[in-house]
Amino acid sequence: MGRWEPNARGRLATAALELYSERGYEQTTVVEIARRAGLTERTFFRHYADKREVLFAGAGDVQEVYVRAVAGALKSSAPIDALAVGLDAVSEMFADHRDFVRSRQVVIMANPELQERDLIKLASISAALAATLRRHGVTEPAASLAAEAGVAVFKVGFERWIAADDEQEMSQLMRDSLDELKAVTAGG
Amino acid sequence: MGRWEPNARGRLATAALELYSERGYEQTTVVEIARRAGLTERTFFRHYADKREVLFAGAGDVQEVYVRAVAGALKSSAPIDALAVGLDAVSEMFADHRDFVRSRQVVIMANPELQERDLIKLASISAALAATLRRHGVTEPAASLAAEAGVAVFKVGFERWIAADDEQEMSQLMRDSLDELKAVTAGG
Repeated sequence: MGRWEPNARGRLATAALELYSERGYEQTTVVEIARRAGLTERTFFRHYADKREVLFAGAGDVQEVYVRAVAGALKSSAPIDALAVGLDAVSEMFADHRDFVRSRQVVIMANPELQERDLIKLASISAALAATLRRHGVTEPAASLAAEAGVAVFKVGFERWIAADDEQEMSQLMRDSLDELKAVTAGG
Repeated sequence: MGRWEPNARGRLATAALELYSERGYEQTTVVEIARRAGLTERTFFRHYADKREVLFAGAGDVQEVYVRAVAGALKSSAPIDALAVGLDAVSEMFADHRDFVRSRQVVIMANPELQERDLIKLASISAALAATLRRHGVTEPAASLAAEAGVAVFKVGFERWIAADDEQEMSQLMRDSLDELKAVTAGG
């Protein structure tokens, strides 16, 4: 497996995002990312399958944290309140990474293929949430609709957080977005 | 432009879907589709950009009908009620095409690339609905959340309609799904 490199994964992610931002995603190679990080190409491939994976590895973590928090809360809460707990847990993950996430978003928005990948990750979160809700006794179509609502709030809250002042916390923007969805569906 | 072929577009769509269902989407060529429809390859390309477009040409119509109906209803209705009017208009489009839509769905579900295209079409509808809501004075984030809700109900209602008995009408399933979303967000 080669020698251990301190925080190689994080250094590769930072280097990749710098290069994607400077010269564009398409124009950046794995060799260049590894060089910028002071690591080898082989080390890169120990951590990421390809250069796209650098941008989306975190999305799997988001899904895992979101689903686990919702599952825990469903034992004592209605689906919509469990989703709120999940959004809180997800917000905590992002708290210290706004700059990284902002740069990442600019890179994704400049590339249709990356935008597609982003949509797929959101659809995957929706499917996982729906499965969790069903496992906890929520019937269809309520489970799928609650899951879609949970992803809609995440998506809109996330975009607002990226665009917001640094003082605005993601957890608050997620809660606001959930409240807005409730108002909209109630006919407000 | 070549001679006029009666209902060439519809014949090509039917032939394409038959072939995709029989032998798989990847394994079907444009030449084969044209031959099955009794038309030329050149005629195919007068109607569709490629073999994928045959499956998604209708998605643009859905977006147009949905957005136009919502825009009309927004003059006198709250966003959520305008979305209900839009879903009714969309349901009317589909009413006589359940068999075609069912076969199409089986083809899409068997192919990740087509599923991605489907997600992109839904995201496009969401963006168009949000723009329409904003144009009619709905502020953000309510506009984006209402649009996401409108797409979520369409997506879930559509899946239920495909799976349902032939007696169940799409418009009713859409209304049921919207009611379920309201109940879920209200904490029911």
